[in-house]
Amino acid sequence: MDHFEYRDGELWAEGVRLADVAQSVGTPLYVYASATLALHLARLTDAFAPLRARVHFAVKSLPNTEVLRLLGSLGSGMDVVSGGELERVRRAGVPMDRVSFAGVGKSEAEIARAIALGVGWINAESEHEVRMIAQLAESAGRRPSVCLRVNPGIDARTHAYITTGTRANKFGVGFDAARAVFDRFARDPRLRLRGLHVHVGSLVGDPSVHTEAVAKILSLADDLDAAGHPIDTLNLGGGFGADYRTGQTPSAAAYAAAVVPLLKDRAARGTTIIIEPGRFIAANAGVLLTRVRDLKPGDAGRTFAVCDAGMITLLRPALYGAFHFVWPVSPAGGLVPKRREPEPPLEGLSLYDVVGPVCESGDFLAQGRPLPTLERGDLLAVFASGAYGMSMASTYNDQPRPAEVLVDGDARRVVRRRETTDDLFRFDTGLGDPA
Amino acid sequence: MDHFEYRDGELWAEGVRLADVAQSVGTPLYVYASATLALHLARLTDAFAPLRARVHFAVKSLPNTEVLRLLGSLGSGMDVVSGGELERVRRAGVPMDRVSFAGVGKSEAEIARAIALGVGWINAESEHEVRMIAQLAESAGRRPSVCLRVNPGIDARTHAYITTGTRANKFGVGFDAARAVFDRFARDPRLRLRGLHVHVGSLVGDPSVHTEAVAKILSLADDLDAAGHPIDTLNLGGGFGADYRTGQTPSAAAYAAAVVPLLKDRAARGTTIIIEPGRFIAANAGVLLTRVRDLKPGDAGRTFAVCDAGMITLLRPALYGAFHFVWPVSPAGGLVPKRREPEPPLEGLSLYDVVGPVCESGDFLAQGRPLPTLERGDLLAVFASGAYGMSMASTYNDQPRPAEVLVDGDARRVVRRRETTDDLFRFDTGLGDPA
Repeated sequence: MDHFEYRDGELWAEGVRLADVAQSVGTPLYVYASATLALHLARLTDAFAPLRARVHFAVKSLPNTEVLRLLGSLGSGMDVVSGGELERVRRAGVPMDRVSFAGVGKSEAEIARAIALGVGWINAESEHEVRMIAQLAESAGRRPSVCLRVNPGIDARTHAYITTGTRANKFGVGFDAARAVFDRFARDPRLRLRGLHVHVGSLVGDPSVHTEAVAKILSLADDLDAAGHPIDTLNLGGGFGADYRTGQTPSAAAYAAAVVPLLKDRAARGTTIIIEPGRFIAANAGVLLTRVRDLKPGDAGRTFAVCDAGMITLLRPALYGAFHFVWPVSPAGGLVPKRREPEPPLEGLSLYDVVGPVCESGDFLAQGRPLPTLERGDLLAVFASGAYGMSMASTYNDQPRPAEVLVDGDARRVVRRRETTDDLFRFDTGLGDPA
Repeated sequence: MDHFEYRDGELWAEGVRLADVAQSVGTPLYVYASATLALHLARLTDAFAPLRARVHFAVKSLPNTEVLRLLGSLGSGMDVVSGGELERVRRAGVPMDRVSFAGVGKSEAEIARAIALGVGWINAESEHEVRMIAQLAESAGRRPSVCLRVNPGIDARTHAYITTGTRANKFGVGFDAARAVFDRFARDPRLRLRGLHVHVGSLVGDPSVHTEAVAKILSLADDLDAAGHPIDTLNLGGGFGADYRTGQTPSAAAYAAAVVPLLKDRAARGTTIIIEPGRFIAANAGVLLTRVRDLKPGDAGRTFAVCDAGMITLLRPALYGAFHFVWPVSPAGGLVPKRREPEPPLEGLSLYDVVGPVCESGDFLAQGRPLPTLERGDLLAVFASGAYGMSMASTYNDQPRPAEVLVDGDARRVVRRRETTDDLFRFDTGLGDPA
């Protein structure tokens, strides 16, 4: 469920007509709905309330400073994976004690900064990282809380690129290695190693994957407790899906039901439970607006709709073969399907390949999609683009990156300005303009 | 052949020790060798000399202003595919009469700018574009030269994402449609429609694909001549490979041999022949330098080498499953194979997955690769990264983009500075820093 709705054959975001925004801010353009961000955050918070779970938004999914400011004002914590994200969260005014700092291959500078800022938790990916944290903490005269990321050896049964919890993935340490790390560092006075972190992957459609992971991490926590290394924090990571198709995702309640029973006792005894959703909160809260620049006959009766957005704007279709529902903002004949799905059961549609301006054939947003008749200049909405959309955008083909707009009720504001051609040359250090 | 060589167990770019550059400029870092850029430009120019072919460098492969300035000073023209690339070429001081402007979905503003600057050729992708060019040319009081891009219906037998010449691709118009466009616009006084453009795809390993495409375009050109629409320009596009593995690519001479005999007569009668290589010139002229931040045991006896570069720095392995040869800049035991290939026949190697700092499993540079023993802090070179490396970089995970260095003999200079954390927030339009 989200706040992008057709009214009288026109797409709106909350109280804002999207055709108006595109007209005034231009395209391509990401538009986010505050109400959807708030709704999805509330749903997870409520569903996990029996655990009093802390919700840390995965910044990498939608790293817009004003979106973070909004989520922070609603009580969300933040999951950051780089020094850049850490700085962004600081600028968004989110209190540092609500921040967890994760990610493989952290640099010394990044860890030192996280310690200096006093983040709530550092999620360590290896024994080497724990050692670095201890050394840097000592220099800083601080005592950071550390969760050790463990690799549960579970296949999340999602796209291989976003499966993170099998032994063939680079993340975390194995269970045996985890015990050794606690034996070495749990009593080290330079840090508080009292937590475990696990993340099985992104876009997990089957909540029982979470059940399996939590059972494993709980058993490890019990073992560590028994070994005299008390565990006071369990960070369960993310892996909650989003509705790329209507009704595709398990509800927040279903995800919670898969793990709350296992964790209830431990939470009641005071263990802090953290979850790190990104996509679940952000994906359905955003659309990408793009204008059709050209229409060209393609193969087998298809038509190419050449748009001003493409793989540079939204990489997911090219990189993961991901499905995004695409529909005109003001569809011909007022045609709007009840459900967002690849082949809506409507009369009067034609097959389109929705492609971008980049010079390669992987530059598509949607292929072989039945759509109402398109004209040059038509505006298309690419739905569920809030997560891993703008965050993965590039300037390939020297295409400036798009603007971002945040809607709140009938108000809207640009929260990241469109890049200009001049911005493309900002980091050049040559002889400069010959003119 | 390129100018990255091991001497006494150390990797050099021309007269510059790469370990020194990484030490002073930091990592990740792209380093380009001027001599290789010049060599590969010269090889193609020489091979196609019987046609007096103009070589237009495909800017999208390596859009660095100083690299363009260098290639321009060596006589190269430029193939640009956006208003951004057009502006970059202008800043690089390349004369506009050596520039062709291609690309699907050109905006009105981009075409108007190309006309105003007086580019040598506009490659039109559709009848709609030809009409736009005519109208904008009339307003500007200019008469631009236009090549119509035709889709030859040929499978280049390369990766699907970089195959551009089949009817299922968005590029160009079919042969029948081409005749209709010439009938309508070849005598239009607002433009000079006298050229054909064809491009079969990127990284074409079999020169006979070019033979087939050229035969088709020649036959169309003859038909158009006969119909009273004289053709004075044939733009053959690119599609010349690069040595990702030693000796993988046909030579410039082999590519030329595939088409020169067909075109020699026509060139002798005054037809301008244009080729648009990008990868052939740039790929082997660049390496990506990255430092190992962590080493972690993986599955089946492999070790993860977690580096400071990844899919954000070089997307090709994740997006295309592309192979890049990776080797330490100062390999343990001085081990250096004679050839760059996936499994060098050397003793004493161990299996590594070379991965990046990004939070997904698609973030790898090389998988299952036998390498000399690595230590944390070691510097790795990712070879043949000059083309489609930096040009596809992103700031995903809020990771600032790397710097670029251009080497010339024993001189080196930074030609794009490293982005800073502050640069990540440059386009924010929120409330700003809370501090």
